[in-house]
Amino acid sequence: MDDLATIPDYGLGWLDASGPSSDIVLSTRVRLARNLQGHAFGPRSRVNDREAVLSLVRSVIEKSSHLSGASLWELAKVSPRTQKILLERRLVSEDLLGGKKGVPPRGAAVLLSTKDPTSVMVNEEDHLRLQSLLSGLRLQDAWGLVDRLEEELGNELPLAYHHEFGFLTSCPTNVGTGLRASVLMHLPGLVLTKEIGQVLKGLNQVGLTFRGLYGEGSEVVGNFFQVSNQTTLGKAEEDLVGHLDQIVRQVIQYEEHARHVLLKEAPAVTEDKIWRAYGLLRYARSLSFEELINLLSGVRLGSSLKLLPNLRVYTLNKIMIYSQTAHLEQAAGRDLPLPECDAHRASFVRRILAREGVVTSDGESSPESP
Amino acid sequence: MDDLATIPDYGLGWLDASGPSSDIVLSTRVRLARNLQGHAFGPRSRVNDREAVLSLVRSVIEKSSHLSGASLWELAKVSPRTQKILLERRLVSEDLLGGKKGVPPRGAAVLLSTKDPTSVMVNEEDHLRLQSLLSGLRLQDAWGLVDRLEEELGNELPLAYHHEFGFLTSCPTNVGTGLRASVLMHLPGLVLTKEIGQVLKGLNQVGLTFRGLYGEGSEVVGNFFQVSNQTTLGKAEEDLVGHLDQIVRQVIQYEEHARHVLLKEAPAVTEDKIWRAYGLLRYARSLSFEELINLLSGVRLGSSLKLLPNLRVYTLNKIMIYSQTAHLEQAAGRDLPLPECDAHRASFVRRILAREGVVTSDGESSPESP
Repeated sequence: MDDLATIPDYGLGWLDASGPSSDIVLSTRVRLARNLQGHAFGPRSRVNDREAVLSLVRSVIEKSSHLSGASLWELAKVSPRTQKILLERRLVSEDLLGGKKGVPPRGAAVLLSTKDPTSVMVNEEDHLRLQSLLSGLRLQDAWGLVDRLEEELGNELPLAYHHEFGFLTSCPTNVGTGLRASVLMHLPGLVLTKEIGQVLKGLNQVGLTFRGLYGEGSEVVGNFFQVSNQTTLGKAEEDLVGHLDQIVRQVIQYEEHARHVLLKEAPAVTEDKIWRAYGLLRYARSLSFEELINLLSGVRLGSSLKLLPNLRVYTLNKIMIYSQTAHLEQAAGRDLPLPECDAHRASFVRRILAREGVVTSDGESSPESP
Repeated sequence: MDDLATIPDYGLGWLDASGPSSDIVLSTRVRLARNLQGHAFGPRSRVNDREAVLSLVRSVIEKSSHLSGASLWELAKVSPRTQKILLERRLVSEDLLGGKKGVPPRGAAVLLSTKDPTSVMVNEEDHLRLQSLLSGLRLQDAWGLVDRLEEELGNELPLAYHHEFGFLTSCPTNVGTGLRASVLMHLPGLVLTKEIGQVLKGLNQVGLTFRGLYGEGSEVVGNFFQVSNQTTLGKAEEDLVGHLDQIVRQVIQYEEHARHVLLKEAPAVTEDKIWRAYGLLRYARSLSFEELINLLSGVRLGSSLKLLPNLRVYTLNKIMIYSQTAHLEQAAGRDLPLPECDAHRASFVRRILAREGVVTSDGESSPESP
């Protein structure tokens, strides 16, 4: 159960940047909050509720054709490092790992499908949190995946539903559809042209919200924004997803326009910014994760603008995930105290960028000499 | 007279880093201030004094075997760009070019030997300023060169001398020997270990002084310090030079010790600093001269510590001189307004570093692919 190698790519399918607009929209995520009738949920749930829920989920795997082969990871039985890796891949939440206490509560688990990029957190804030994670802007597809998963689970399990409110959830903000759809966007153009404030204000006005890279309450770093719906009640899932999709397409257009403006009005400053970020990533001997993300932002912009022609979005996505602490520790086979971790991160980034081919000083690319 | 190509390397011999300790002591300079009897000097000198002095100097060239072939550049007849190039090579001073007025006064000239790295500024603050410029720490040699030049000139010209004070100069601080010997030192180790304040205080206590890269009143950038004697009176030239030499050797030892401490106690931070500087120089698209000098400081330290093994001190010296504005304009064949000049500087540095061989991400070096 502790061996990540059994499903090494799990949660990493989106890294391949195969989805539409994947230079601007890194990934699409849809999650549904569901609870089971007959078991207390949220803060009122007890150990026996949670264990019963976990048993029910386990029983479904065996019955369902779609979920067959899925693996169920009880987090308390998983090593702390693997817990953190699951967190860094966004397959589990801080809460599911026990929050500040750092010990996963009894019954906390994650169900990982091996057939498609879906998963279910068990006994998080709600009994079940179904989620899908795809590359680029693929809201309909991501919704379709969790919708099918929900149908499958709903066929076997008694989901808590109120004829007036819809699906019942632990937190009232999730009642109704229980749906949160979100896209992780990279918006350096809007930040550099200082239009981002206006755009974010606009999102709020149409019922959307944004957060930083690491979910609720996290700061925005590296010009990465998670944009998602705020309301879950009173609208059909398709409408919520369709609305978000429409607005995100607009934001993509704004971002593309801002990049065009940058290249037209401040090409030298923009290029300089991009190449400096590349130069630091290529040669620094120590990188904090926050600095890395900020530098990746510049390099990602350069890749998207074809100023760093040989650098694939796939590589940049990979760096983002694998340069997180637990992933670096996994690679090193041991814990990495802070200064060492920053050194491993820098070394990893240098190796990846070197493998991608040396981008030479004037922009031509050549393979690294032996 | 305007064609630098006739003596393209003039003033640049020291760049080859052939002198002792040339990774720490970039260059040694000795100058002698002299005036001619029978002509007012300093602020009291008139156009006819200055023109008479210039004529006398011209007449000496023809008579002297040692100076034969030397070229005399009347600065008012030299293009503004060439004037600036001479300044950037430290062959003339701001004052000789007319200071803030920017127009060289009548009679202002520089005599450039083609036989050795000596030159004479004519009609600067004093009638004659004899100087020599050598790579590394070579105070005795540099003194020997100006001493021989002075003898040659003194044989033909009546130098103003007072039996009690010695050689008379425009400014009383130069009276006596008229000698200023200075070495341009790179002291990043002492700066990073924060010992520099103590060392500079020590210099003052033994009658020495320091200035920034660009002479009196200039700020210290890039950890480059010009260390020179303060007094010129009451001691023999050999003693002044010998004293400076002795102290500079001590400072070199302090600097080497500080570098040793850095490598031992903060190797990661030191390496990171060096490689980041290299990464920025290698890829930036715009560099101010001040930023360049600061980054060169890091890279120079790395080269000296063999952390950037393929980077020769010669290359770093060359970058320092040729990335100055007038040199860049000369290469471009036209004036370069500010943002363009910074772009040309960055491009020049990238080209030079690329030619030196790619220093790869992990410190091995390989020649740049075509």
